[in-house]
Amino acid sequence: MGRDEYLAAIKPRMPEKRYIHTIGVMETAIYLAQKYGENVNSAETAAILHDIAKYADEDWMRQIVKEHKLDPKLCDWGSEILHGPVGAWIAETEFNIHDVDILNSIRFHTTGRAGMSKLEKIIYIADMIEPNRKFDGVEKLRKKVEVDLNKAMRACIRHSIAFLVHSKQPIFPVSIECYNDVISSDTTA
Amino acid sequence: MGRDEYLAAIKPRMPEKRYIHTIGVMETAIYLAQKYGENVNSAETAAILHDIAKYADEDWMRQIVKEHKLDPKLCDWGSEILHGPVGAWIAETEFNIHDVDILNSIRFHTTGRAGMSKLEKIIYIADMIEPNRKFDGVEKLRKKVEVDLNKAMRACIRHSIAFLVHSKQPIFPVSIECYNDVISSDTTA
Repeated sequence: MGRDEYLAAIKPRMPEKRYIHTIGVMETAIYLAQKYGENVNSAETAAILHDIAKYADEDWMRQIVKEHKLDPKLCDWGSEILHGPVGAWIAETEFNIHDVDILNSIRFHTTGRAGMSKLEKIIYIADMIEPNRKFDGVEKLRKKVEVDLNKAMRACIRHSIAFLVHSKQPIFPVSIECYNDVISSDTTA
Repeated sequence: MGRDEYLAAIKPRMPEKRYIHTIGVMETAIYLAQKYGENVNSAETAAILHDIAKYADEDWMRQIVKEHKLDPKLCDWGSEILHGPVGAWIAETEFNIHDVDILNSIRFHTTGRAGMSKLEKIIYIADMIEPNRKFDGVEKLRKKVEVDLNKAMRACIRHSIAFLVHSKQPIFPVSIECYNDVISSDTTA
């Protein structure tokens, strides 16, 4: 499948605003893939599909987690955490994507994880800074990714955790593994 | 053993400044125990002993973790995380304290954990807000504990995680379990 087919497949599964966000993530991910020497097609596919499960029914997603033996801890969490792993499952089973790097980029685009690949970082960052995103500090993150992908990843996960604490939202433990991993890899930035 | 004996036992194991901090924690913990109906002697003992391992040799602490089968993950962490569990081990083996609540209050005084007891919360909070502590926001925490112990605990763990993210320090996963636990118990505050 090519870009147009993927876009046609995701469009009916989300509101217009989320579709526009997805286009933004796609363009940003392609730009970052070119800039940092990653496979552009992989970035495009992962970006288009990253939110495919965002509006799926929560109970259905929990059922998928149980039936297909995804991490059982996911069942204690809501759509915000479920839609990445279930999105990867949809990409694999419905769209026949078997590229593990693309699947992991979809799977971990919200939480991050320890030991992220370059593609995973690109999708995580693109999701956070695409042109339609508007939050205090987003410009700083956009500038950082022009200079260094790893420093941008570190700034993004720090921003994300600080935001969750500020807004009293739960933190998925895998995000802390991601945070601990990226801050230990370079503490000078 | 009574207060004077415990104090005499800890004094040679820490610098003067840390001893003064310990007295502050003791006084605050006793005040909070009286205020919230906790056993005052338990609060006093846990507070006096909470930092007993703070200046112990890190390699020695890792050896204790291994030999006595404490959580093996502790070995990946430094003194800041090791000194609580190893302090509890010292309290048990050297001071013959077998009150699980006192031991857990020492064990988790830095990290917190999910499902903390009242005494554990008192020691965690007292450690953070005792009169010698000076950091932005400490007054707000002191005011909060005058009103509600659980809300103060939530504010303290949020402050702690935000501080670690701000200063790019690693976060022990048990602290996130604590954070997720206390924010889910009441989201109105």
